Amino acid sequence: MERLYEQLDNIYNEIVDIRRYLHQNPELSFEEVNTSKYIADYHKQLGHEVRTGVGGNGVVATLRGEKSGPTVALRADFDALPIQEENDTPYKSKVDGVMHACGHDGHTATLLGLAKVLNSMKDEIEGTVVFIHQHAEELPPGGAIAMIEDGCLDGVDVIFGTHLQAQNPLGEIGYRSGALQAAPDCFDIKIQGKGGHGASPHETKDSIAIGGQLISSLQQIVSRRIDPLDSAVVSVCNFVAKNPYNVIADSAVLSGTVRTFKESVRSFIEKEIEKIVKGACLAADASYTYKYTRGYPATVNHPEETEFVADLAKSVPGVKVVREHEPIMAGEDYSYYLQHVKGTYFFTGAQNPEWEETFPHHHSKFDIDERALLIAAKVLGKATLTYLKNGSANLKSKESAVPRS
Amino acid sequence: MERLYEQLDNIYNEIVDIRRYLHQNPELSFEEVNTSKYIADYHKQLGHEVRTGVGGNGVVATLRGEKSGPTVALRADFDALPIQEENDTPYKSKVDGVMHACGHDGHTATLLGLAKVLNSMKDEIEGTVVFIHQHAEELPPGGAIAMIEDGCLDGVDVIFGTHLQAQNPLGEIGYRSGALQAAPDCFDIKIQGKGGHGASPHETKDSIAIGGQLISSLQQIVSRRIDPLDSAVVSVCNFVAKNPYNVIADSAVLSGTVRTFKESVRSFIEKEIEKIVKGACLAADASYTYKYTRGYPATVNHPEETEFVADLAKSVPGVKVVREHEPIMAGEDYSYYLQHVKGTYFFTGAQNPEWEETFPHHHSKFDIDERALLIAAKVLGKATLTYLKNGSANLKSKESAVPRS
Amino acid sequence: MERLYEQLDNIYNEIVDIRRYLHQNPELSFEEVNTSKYIADYHKQLGHEVRTGVGGNGVVATLRGEKSGPTVALRADFDALPIQEENDTPYKSKVDGVMHACGHDGHTATLLGLAKVLNSMKDEIEGTVVFIHQHAEELPPGGAIAMIEDGCLDGVDVIFGTHLQAQNPLGEIGYRSGALQAAPDCFDIKIQGKGGHGASPHETKDSIAIGGQLISSLQQIVSRRIDPLDSAVVSVCNFVAKNPYNVIADSAVLSGTVRTFKESVRSFIEKEIEKIVKGACLAADASYTYKYTRGYPATVNHPEETEFVADLAKSVPGVKVVREHEPIMAGEDYSYYLQHVKGTYFFTGAQNPEWEETFPHHHSKFDIDERALLIAAKVLGKATLTYLKNGSANLKSKESAVPRS
Amino acid sequence: MERLYEQLDNIYNEIVDIRRYLHQNPELSFEEVNTSKYIADYHKQLGHEVRTGVGGNGVVATLRGEKSGPTVALRADFDALPIQEENDTPYKSKVDGVMHACGHDGHTATLLGLAKVLNSMKDEIEGTVVFIHQHAEELPPGGAIAMIEDGCLDGVDVIFGTHLQAQNPLGEIGYRSGALQAAPDCFDIKIQGKGGHGASPHETKDSIAIGGQLISSLQQIVSRRIDPLDSAVVSVCNFVAKNPYNVIADSAVLSGTVRTFKESVRSFIEKEIEKIVKGACLAADASYTYKYTRGYPATVNHPEETEFVADLAKSVPGVKVVREHEPIMAGEDYSYYLQHVKGTYFFTGAQNPEWEETFPHHHSKFDIDERALLIAAKVLGKATLTYLKNGSANLKSKESAVPRS
Repeated sequence: MERLYEQLDNIYNEIVDIRRYLHQNPELSFEEVNTSKYIADYHKQLGHEVRTGVGGNGVVATLRGEKSGPTVALRADFDALPIQEENDTPYKSKVDGVMHACGHDGHTATLLGLAKVLNSMKDEIEGTVVFIHQHAEELPPGGAIAMIEDGCLDGVDVIFGTHLQAQNPLGEIGYRSGALQAAPDCFDIKIQGKGGHGASPHETKDSIAIGGQLISSLQQIVSRRIDPLDSAVVSVCNFVAKNPYNVIADSAVLSGTVRTFKESVRSFIEKEIEKIVKGACLAADASYTYKYTRGYPATVNHPEETEFVADLAKSVPGVKVVREHEPIMAGEDYSYYLQHVKGTYFFTGAQNPEWEETFPHHHSKFDIDERALLIAAKVLGKATLTYLKNGSANLKSKESAVPRS
Repeated sequence: MERLYEQLDNIYNEIVDIRRYLHQNPELSFEEVNTSKYIADYHKQLGHEVRTGVGGNGVVATLRGEKSGPTVALRADFDALPIQEENDTPYKSKVDGVMHACGHDGHTATLLGLAKVLNSMKDEIEGTVVFIHQHAEELPPGGAIAMIEDGCLDGVDVIFGTHLQAQNPLGEIGYRSGALQAAPDCFDIKIQGKGGHGASPHETKDSIAIGGQLISSLQQIVSRRIDPLDSAVVSVCNFVAKNPYNVIADSAVLSGTVRTFKESVRSFIEKEIEKIVKGACLAADASYTYKYTRGYPATVNHPEETEFVADLAKSVPGVKVVREHEPIMAGEDYSYYLQHVKGTYFFTGAQNPEWEETFPHHHSKFDIDERALLIAAKVLGKATLTYLKNGSANLKSKESAVPRS
Repeated sequence: MERLYEQLDNIYNEIVDIRRYLHQNPELSFEEVNTSKYIADYHKQLGHEVRTGVGGNGVVATLRGEKSGPTVALRADFDALPIQEENDTPYKSKVDGVMHACGHDGHTATLLGLAKVLNSMKDEIEGTVVFIHQHAEELPPGGAIAMIEDGCLDGVDVIFGTHLQAQNPLGEIGYRSGALQAAPDCFDIKIQGKGGHGASPHETKDSIAIGGQLISSLQQIVSRRIDPLDSAVVSVCNFVAKNPYNVIADSAVLSGTVRTFKESVRSFIEKEIEKIVKGACLAADASYTYKYTRGYPATVNHPEETEFVADLAKSVPGVKVVREHEPIMAGEDYSYYLQHVKGTYFFTGAQNPEWEETFPHHHSKFDIDERALLIAAKVLGKATLTYLKNGSANLKSKESAVPRS
Repeated sequence: MERLYEQLDNIYNEIVDIRRYLHQNPELSFEEVNTSKYIADYHKQLGHEVRTGVGGNGVVATLRGEKSGPTVALRADFDALPIQEENDTPYKSKVDGVMHACGHDGHTATLLGLAKVLNSMKDEIEGTVVFIHQHAEELPPGGAIAMIEDGCLDGVDVIFGTHLQAQNPLGEIGYRSGALQAAPDCFDIKIQGKGGHGASPHETKDSIAIGGQLISSLQQIVSRRIDPLDSAVVSVCNFVAKNPYNVIADSAVLSGTVRTFKESVRSFIEKEIEKIVKGACLAADASYTYKYTRGYPATVNHPEETEFVADLAKSVPGVKVVREHEPIMAGEDYSYYLQHVKGTYFFTGAQNPEWEETFPHHHSKFDIDERALLIAAKVLGKATLTYLKNGSANLKSKESAVPRS
């Protein structure tokens, strides 16, 4: 791996330049035309096979090694957010109201830099590397699902990817077998009672009174109906029944979010909410509408591939800690890739230890320690080369293989 | 009326004696064999036509006046209660655990005394007087319904009756047109969830959690669904789901009382409770049983007859106040008579102004001021004679009739 | 009374003209400058003593009879509503967005016509008649309270007034001793929890979850804490906690109305709401603000004066039915007069039996049968003359007086 | 390890005999006098140092190896349950109403058999083995806490133990780093309202209505206030407010269980319950009593020792599967040992694959596949010998040590 690490060190400045260029020129989800072209051009210059317009603005580049072997995909997303940057850096966003506030600029720069280095190591590569540059991660339905339908995973054996985490310390790699990120769904309920004068409740069906009971009943999904060993959230975030002081609510609107890690729990909650709404309305002769909208599925890492990356990350230069990461409730459309091929997604710490304050993702003052890009590139690169050489993510077969060679 | 008043005054001591005899020899509802015989014998001695065993232990005696005219019924109940008397009076109950703690002894003595006096005024009586001595008022289904089925109201034009009220001052007559006493119903609900270990709520259907929501939802019947100008009570008085600390309730039992004054409200509540139980169980996949048991209907006085008595009571000796009485939530099976014939039921104050403390009805120290019996007899007697003379309870027709005579 | 009735019949057309003039020229509460002047001028022409600017735009006119006696006040309100009239009548409102949609035009025309007639009967009048023309009944704090402070009731012995009711049949007079109209109050609650991400409820204090429990707890005021024989309403009419799908509510705003007939019940509810809000917030570590705003007090008629009007109305030409009216939950600042002097307020039916549809008060198609004005004038006129002649509203003293004359 | 395995195989029949003897002679928690003597005698025969009466009926036996080294403790519990056995086996309980229905007979037989074998291998043993035979695991406060206070862990470096699991398949070893078993606490709440007649709720403080709201509010602890990634259960299992149909509840009693894995979550819930009870009672002017009773703490395995056992178990004869076990909500007082010394607790599958039905622990038909005792003894024995040889549970230090030897 020394060759990989050394060459990445050598182009670190270029990686930073790419990241800063992208940071200054952010584009919103599904509108990333220039970013897409920039990426495609970069790969073309390297001589990679490049498909553009994959599932939208997606770009897929392919590097074929000189030896035969399996196919590893690496994924980076490249869309930005509708946030006005409030940082005062030389590489501040030049686009009003649009900002790379989630580190996707860093993801892309990492992958391009790594592509360049792997390209130069073609003689060592025993198989194929597919670079999946995905648009529109931030906005459901997301770019992943369309890129998969458009063939980006064809022939792929395994996929690796990482998210730079501004609130995890630089030098930390966080892995988790199984569910790493939740499925973030949302729901909309409308209670249709019957309005009327505040002094005559008996002539109405009071939608607020119904809603009050409903909110309380919904708590029982998590408190009583989900296995306490499973994690789930049902939050009514919005309740609006706006009326004058003396007009009983004709209808009430409730909406909120559901977070789950297991498909079975997710489907169960979708049904339970409706059951409870139905019961509450039946008890009050009211009617309702109910809509449950699925966001991305949970991001469920495959055990072997996760252990594989966790293990090899320990000896990557710059990595100080490799730890099992707790699941997080945010969603990620990387989840779709993992439904089709084996692989894993991990977190690369990107918190500069010298900053007084670290701002969370999606914050107008979000920033990352750029040294994390180098670490991410090394881990992804090592995972790629090791997998290709080993022929799988099975560490034992690899270990046992070593003595033989 | 002077003749009526004078003769009643003359037999006041006898009335008191009758009351004290009955007080010392109380009999429980549906078991009033001796009391029934005592009453029947009294009327027979007066030469009245007497039917015994009417609808059970009921006694109906008839006095025919010398002139023809309508038929007035007067009703007194005569059952006692399963209470151990704690008073220390010469006329204390001689029966262990049984006591006239609601004044029915006084009702009966009043009616017997009045019967004797009216009998002696036969020459003046322009019609018929029917004395309805009713058993079993205290215990649903009560005696009234059976006595009516057994013909006690046949030929009756109007009915009058009174209840001695120990907590209303002596000298007060309380009347009310419309609903005077509530319909006291009760309900039984069983929530059938699914029990299980306290640590595994997701494998159960928690009957207590369902019950908690149900109790809250039931509040909305009165707070939201009944006209605020109507009176109604829905009380869950009993909730039992008894389990060890770590066993989730398989089922929960709820019961309670409903009080209403209008039949429409009563039927509405009967249905609404079930609707709410159904909704609560549906929301939790549980099942239920529901039973609604009707007690006596509301006691609804007829307006004309009520005004009639209220008006004539004003000039009865001993009556100091005639006031419109607020409705009371307790029930009374006099209500059945009023569903068949016109009439009214009123309250005769029986609180001795010199007693330091007055105990409520059904209390082991309950007692009445016996002078109230005389007042009650005079009001009932005047109502009877006036009605018979007037031919109706229409005060105007009577007044207009006066000049003519 | 024949003279009164005859003269009123004679100027019926004038009364209608006045009403229609006012209807075409409505003015909003507290802005009734021209109406006020119109009224004052009318009385001045009759030679009455006139005070203008009483408590605002109020007008008080005084007619002194030729004989001495007590002082009777008659009240009519004259403000209009911010409603765009949708009727298509010759006398439709000429002012955009302003309309006499509650019959105050009729009240005023009635009183002016009656003033003219009584003025012409000065020789018969045994005392003084005070015409209270009140502004701003529709908008709390209302005009009554200021007019009273400004002396409009000085020297007044009794007050009479009526409201034309478009949904009661023409020819009906509705009276009620005691509370006729409710006290309409309102409340504002803000729950201050702590917002946060919908996926992390444990880092928040969920204002909607708190609010749900609060709504349910508030039901218990009416269902459990108010005497079932009293009438009260507590309606949460407005609940707003507007948020995106995944943001837990930082705060929630609730508001609504409270209706009561008794001051004790009103004060009790004001305190109970806060107690419940406090408990709900304590249970969730949240804070709150609470404001209870009193509207007009309940309109509580004096018994003797009510019976007095009810009795004499029976024989007024055009009156077909005099009935005890159920209380209504709407408020009326006539209530303040009744807190200072004896009197009564009654309803005069104004529904045209031939209209296919009658629109409720405050509706853009509201209208009245103008014949009701004549009936109202006759009842008010008869009450005035009878009271002055009798010296009080005591019907018995009057009756006993009759033989003497 | 071959020597260990072989010798254990040789005495398998003796181990089974011990288990069956104990099974036939069960003793209840804190009453295990004969069992205690039996164990002590066994160790004495082997020549071990034996302390009896340790913290009650506990027995601690010590085997000193011929070489010096660290001290490993092994723990087995030996109390039975108040259950009438319903199995029909030759070794059925001879004591009416008492039964080894949780496998503690097997735990003890395993440890005694292992003690005999290790004793025979004294020459190989590089340190000390302490056999902790604990009484009273089934009944809080349990025997562990008293034995620790009485010094059973003095000088101990590490502790290992296992529970035979009748519902896990024979041949499976289940391990878990961190919390394996929950802390099972319980709570008692009494709501003191004010009773009264069911028809007069306004004169009462309805304890059932308060309780209904309370049950719903308590759901929010788990649904809103606990990190969704933590596991916790709050179950109200018991709610009793027993009353006639028409008597409003003076008080209501609630009790239930709380299950947690983290001390911080446990303390938080203890406080939150009271906060919610307090708020609910404040809102209704009621008072309360609240008692929270802590059961055993959560059983939290140390990571290194857990990984150590999991790893070495893989190659133990008879072990087919070594898997990470999900946490379970039941409690275990082994937890106290882990608060004082490093160590781990694991599950040994004991389900006979040929039985048609397996009955759960604490069931009257509970039984185990006795072959599990041999497997458990081998894993515990290997762990002991390996730890003593290696000097710690650090697998890396051990592995690195291997080449050196």
